[in-house]
Amino acid sequence: MKQTKPLILITNDDGINAPGIHELVNYVKEMGDIVVIAPDAPHSGQSSAISVNKVLQITAHPDYNGARMYSINGTPVDCIKLGIHAIMERRPDLILSGINHGSNSGNSIIYSGTMGAVLEGCMLGIPSIGYSYHSHDQASDISCCAEIVKKITSRVIAGGLPADICLNVNIPKCDKVCGIKTVRAARGYWTEEYAEYTDPHGKPFYWLTGRFHNEEPDNPETDLYWTDRGYASVVPCRPDQSATDMIAGISSLISD
Amino acid sequence: MKQTKPLILITNDDGINAPGIHELVNYVKEMGDIVVIAPDAPHSGQSSAISVNKVLQITAHPDYNGARMYSINGTPVDCIKLGIHAIMERRPDLILSGINHGSNSGNSIIYSGTMGAVLEGCMLGIPSIGYSYHSHDQASDISCCAEIVKKITSRVIAGGLPADICLNVNIPKCDKVCGIKTVRAARGYWTEEYAEYTDPHGKPFYWLTGRFHNEEPDNPETDLYWTDRGYASVVPCRPDQSATDMIAGISSLISD
Repeated sequence: MKQTKPLILITNDDGINAPGIHELVNYVKEMGDIVVIAPDAPHSGQSSAISVNKVLQITAHPDYNGARMYSINGTPVDCIKLGIHAIMERRPDLILSGINHGSNSGNSIIYSGTMGAVLEGCMLGIPSIGYSYHSHDQASDISCCAEIVKKITSRVIAGGLPADICLNVNIPKCDKVCGIKTVRAARGYWTEEYAEYTDPHGKPFYWLTGRFHNEEPDNPETDLYWTDRGYASVVPCRPDQSATDMIAGISSLISD
Repeated sequence: MKQTKPLILITNDDGINAPGIHELVNYVKEMGDIVVIAPDAPHSGQSSAISVNKVLQITAHPDYNGARMYSINGTPVDCIKLGIHAIMERRPDLILSGINHGSNSGNSIIYSGTMGAVLEGCMLGIPSIGYSYHSHDQASDISCCAEIVKKITSRVIAGGLPADICLNVNIPKCDKVCGIKTVRAARGYWTEEYAEYTDPHGKPFYWLTGRFHNEEPDNPETDLYWTDRGYASVVPCRPDQSATDMIAGISSLISD
């Protein structure tokens, strides 16, 4: 008899051992056949980076809760590309990334390895969703994510996603999520970005830090407005960054 | 007397020693005061990656053709962030990235460290342009880029760029560029993505390769159509990937 269960590829950027990826398996295991392919180590802030001059290797791990588990010594996008090329028997029907420990709201999506994997899946024509939980503490209880993850995942399995569109879901840190709001990313920028130190030879060195300054905290059209108020946010994203509405203006700027 | 020359920050993803960054300095040195801040090693395929758990250090190098030169042991985006934080006396008026050896046409922009730096500059509100030349051979003569780089850079210095818009410029490999076309990125995907090997223990390993399959080679609205025909392409890009036109549709998909 033909296998009709959806084939779901799960990845993340916190690595194969992160609690969030195990929780994600737990939440969706009834919805399909699960294959987990994740980096062998944490890869936060890796965006859509790919390993262009490096040998990639695949390691099989013991099954977890019915899911086949593999790690790759690369980035989240490497996991999607090489996973589909060398591990999956067929193209997955769905790609899930997460559950990331830490926000990917506002412009954080552009740095996010979690969302790098999702954008990659989308460019391959596969419905893809990234889930992020607003606590960096990997020991924190993320069970409040279960209902949101199950609902959005099941809706996308049933209804699909439009071509070239993927989802960036952010879930606030709270006992009970109030609901789901579909919005755009809040505009803002990062401030106080580096801690500064001095090495034993008197030379400075730096460590990335900083916080996101939301330029529109009172705008209900944005993700952070709602996550700040206990709602999960869903931002539909498009990998292509071409600003087609600006082609005429730029053309007149640089043409003779 | 007040200094009124534009302050230009130049970076790349091929590293501080790449010929393309020196050529870029040569082409624009009359247009402003130049500070070069680039990775200490090649960082192709780094996208908008940031170093989140790593010490960053700055190294000063001898001036090149009137430009101050610095390297950072990080990604192109690290160079923009830390460069502005710790090296530049004031915010640059313009950021240039390149000249990259290799195409950033089609969907390659999403993997490109060259364009990662440009998107970062754009999010900081600084007019930013990425230049890429369609040859991976770092020894190749790229003097045919000079006219295009000078023209576009001077036009942007004079006229600025719209808010939240940066430019991805691709220059074909040819003796003489036919002209400039402002367009969008061609749609496509990568095929045959990995070379496969077997290690001495009989275990497979992989090396990223592949080629871009252009889904619309006959569409004059796209960058690759024109670079294939000897023109430079300019794609206006927007860092924010929120698909605002899809919010209503996605909302109805996942709401009750």
